[in-house]
Amino acid sequence: MSSPVLLAPQWIAPVAPPPAPADPLRSAAPHGVLSGHAVVIDGDRITALLPLAHAQQRYPQAPTIPLPGHLLTPGFVNLHTHAAMALLRGVGDDLPLHRWLHERIWPLESRLVGAPFVHDGALLAFHEMLLGGITCVNDMYFFPEAAIDAALLLGIRSVHGIIVIDFPSAYASDPGDYLRKGLELRDRMRDEPLVSFCLAPHAPYTVADEPLRRVATLSRELGVPIHIHVHETREEIERSVSQHGMRPLERLAALGIVGPELIAVHAVHLSDSDLRLLADSGASVAHCPRSNLKLASGIAPTARMHQLGITVGIGTDGSASNNRLDLLGEARSAALLAKGGSGSAEAWPAARTLRAMTLDGARALGLDAHIGSIEAGKQADLVAIDMSAAELAPVFDPVSHLIYSCGREHIAHVWVAGRHVVQKRQIADPTAGLRVREVVARTAVWHNRVGEILSGQA
Amino acid sequence: MSSPVLLAPQWIAPVAPPPAPADPLRSAAPHGVLSGHAVVIDGDRITALLPLAHAQQRYPQAPTIPLPGHLLTPGFVNLHTHAAMALLRGVGDDLPLHRWLHERIWPLESRLVGAPFVHDGALLAFHEMLLGGITCVNDMYFFPEAAIDAALLLGIRSVHGIIVIDFPSAYASDPGDYLRKGLELRDRMRDEPLVSFCLAPHAPYTVADEPLRRVATLSRELGVPIHIHVHETREEIERSVSQHGMRPLERLAALGIVGPELIAVHAVHLSDSDLRLLADSGASVAHCPRSNLKLASGIAPTARMHQLGITVGIGTDGSASNNRLDLLGEARSAALLAKGGSGSAEAWPAARTLRAMTLDGARALGLDAHIGSIEAGKQADLVAIDMSAAELAPVFDPVSHLIYSCGREHIAHVWVAGRHVVQKRQIADPTAGLRVREVVARTAVWHNRVGEILSGQA
Repeated sequence: MSSPVLLAPQWIAPVAPPPAPADPLRSAAPHGVLSGHAVVIDGDRITALLPLAHAQQRYPQAPTIPLPGHLLTPGFVNLHTHAAMALLRGVGDDLPLHRWLHERIWPLESRLVGAPFVHDGALLAFHEMLLGGITCVNDMYFFPEAAIDAALLLGIRSVHGIIVIDFPSAYASDPGDYLRKGLELRDRMRDEPLVSFCLAPHAPYTVADEPLRRVATLSRELGVPIHIHVHETREEIERSVSQHGMRPLERLAALGIVGPELIAVHAVHLSDSDLRLLADSGASVAHCPRSNLKLASGIAPTARMHQLGITVGIGTDGSASNNRLDLLGEARSAALLAKGGSGSAEAWPAARTLRAMTLDGARALGLDAHIGSIEAGKQADLVAIDMSAAELAPVFDPVSHLIYSCGREHIAHVWVAGRHVVQKRQIADPTAGLRVREVVARTAVWHNRVGEILSGQA
Repeated sequence: MSSPVLLAPQWIAPVAPPPAPADPLRSAAPHGVLSGHAVVIDGDRITALLPLAHAQQRYPQAPTIPLPGHLLTPGFVNLHTHAAMALLRGVGDDLPLHRWLHERIWPLESRLVGAPFVHDGALLAFHEMLLGGITCVNDMYFFPEAAIDAALLLGIRSVHGIIVIDFPSAYASDPGDYLRKGLELRDRMRDEPLVSFCLAPHAPYTVADEPLRRVATLSRELGVPIHIHVHETREEIERSVSQHGMRPLERLAALGIVGPELIAVHAVHLSDSDLRLLADSGASVAHCPRSNLKLASGIAPTARMHQLGITVGIGTDGSASNNRLDLLGEARSAALLAKGGSGSAEAWPAARTLRAMTLDGARALGLDAHIGSIEAGKQADLVAIDMSAAELAPVFDPVSHLIYSCGREHIAHVWVAGRHVVQKRQIADPTAGLRVREVVARTAVWHNRVGEILSGQA
């Protein structure tokens, strides 16, 4: 049964080819921003984008949700995170990478990680993400079934990495075990429309050639992306050269990993030939600017990536290394660093940055036929940003305002697959809201356990 | 008449030497954070910082304001802005500096700037700043009397630059006229406790030797700081070398401008000798990280500045080049860029970053005897950050959380000189709130005028 609803915001940024150019009522605006238009949603889909008056004629029975002063954009895509690590946010700040890993993250993970930890951490993380306009998240962590429970409860779209790593953990014993568990979970989730998967070998330095070859084969057979940390630090590259005689990306290419299905996470230190390899192969990059700064990895050459036509999405990384799961803030950092890093104030202009955080993230995940832009036929994953606040007046260009002036505090409404999950800055579903409050209360228990482990008492 | 009030937050970050070390009830915490303590304020001052139980014994009649889950810090100091430019926020995004200035900022300023523009823009800017925890702002713009009206209405502490520039404007005709008007205003404001002044020659490339010498003399005579844009871009330095045979800072030193009273704004491109000059002379830096990125100027060597003992405060710059007047976000960028830029994740740790945005900013302004830390005898300029939100649970270290995880959306209460100006995220004074709404309504008029000027219709 059809029951269309009209969303009538002040501005729409479709992040897509503009609709029906022959339409005489279409009002042009900078960056293809539309005024006086409506998005029609029906069930889980966008069914039309057209002038409001036309929409009201065509759907006379449909209710209209007026959104004066709001900009409507596609939902944001968080292309890289470790959601469960929300429970470790701030335990290792201001430490060099080696001490951060050896003194904080690994000792804590080895003691804490299990389905309860992953569920609670992921629920906190997805709650934060949804309120910040993230409608699709690409997560990489152990016990993904617990993260999926949290995602389905909150109604966020999620992609889960089938982890492959040479080391045993509480979750799995060896690369084959990791893959088997991940693929079984993928089969069980076949009928969940909001859940999908990618292959997630941890990094070139933690996965041997043989399992990487298997990942390459599986990716081609199953048609799923490969999500891997790569070229995050200079040391990683030097070690690969001395150990394998190749830079990590060269080695991945030799193993069949570098192609359109590759999501190269971080990609901070890239030579000209690395950049050409990514561009020529059609690979994508998951750019995590704040994590790269915080761990002192460096600044990725993202202006150059855009020049070369590389698809660059944006990720928050996990909250142990960021510590805000705030894609809008991350996108602002990405735009500013692209300019400051390249010496060109024209690098990563606002509209292009909005595309990075929506359609380009979706493309990297192989989901751009379904999400990432406001087009008839796509899933209704939408964000409405309220620009009526005093600190945003006057608005000259709503897309530029979104990237440079707004914060996640201005995100008022979020829809995922047509479901109105965030209403006026609150999780709309009371059951989900209650569960979030329960988990927040339980963080006191996790806080104590972390303290005991770090002080050697447990 | 004395009427003390006790503020009882969950945590206090005094940003100062810890109180009374002999006190047996004092609980140590990372970065000198105190738990179970109270700040006693009386009139415009902090009169004590001591354990809550002691405070309640000592002041049995005083009301207690409980702030569970809140961190109390000194008010934030915005060391560099052009407040009135809030009305031009977003008119020139993604343009190179030359086009930004010649096609947008200068044509607009030459047509718009006057007392009404400055009043409305500054009121919007100061409102945004106060809600974001900024209790003291160092402003540099024409018609400062109009900005002072706005500051006094809202109750923010403000320092105003006595502009000196070789070019005429609607405000003044020549360097002498600028100085005369600024000094007269300073005399008129002598009895306003929340208002002070500094000398603000615009930049080495817009002010000739003779007026710069006069500024140096006046600074010594009057005991006021000198606030000047310097070493923002490479071109500025190259032009100075070819024109004067000296780098801008060398020339300023020769003219008597470089000393403890100097606030070097931007200071992005510094040679070793520039850094040593700043360090040896006791000069301060106003670091504006996001503006430097957005205009593609570069990244200031702030980790090195700290190593050399240079006082570095943080500024938002004006909202035409940033575009958020958000000192907390700016401080996070400063901490992250110090790490990413230097390659050391230990650079600019959270507690040191909090000091940069409070006490070090106050020191640069010569106001550190009065503001910048929570100490008995200082002005009660305070910020309470609510850390009870789901996206902040659990809290391992409140100072680290403030810098890396919180946003200005978590700032709940602000006091300036003991006056509770922001209560639960709202401007407390209804008259001020009404005036802000009037100005927001009037931005539609400014918006139209900007559009007319840029389209050549006016």
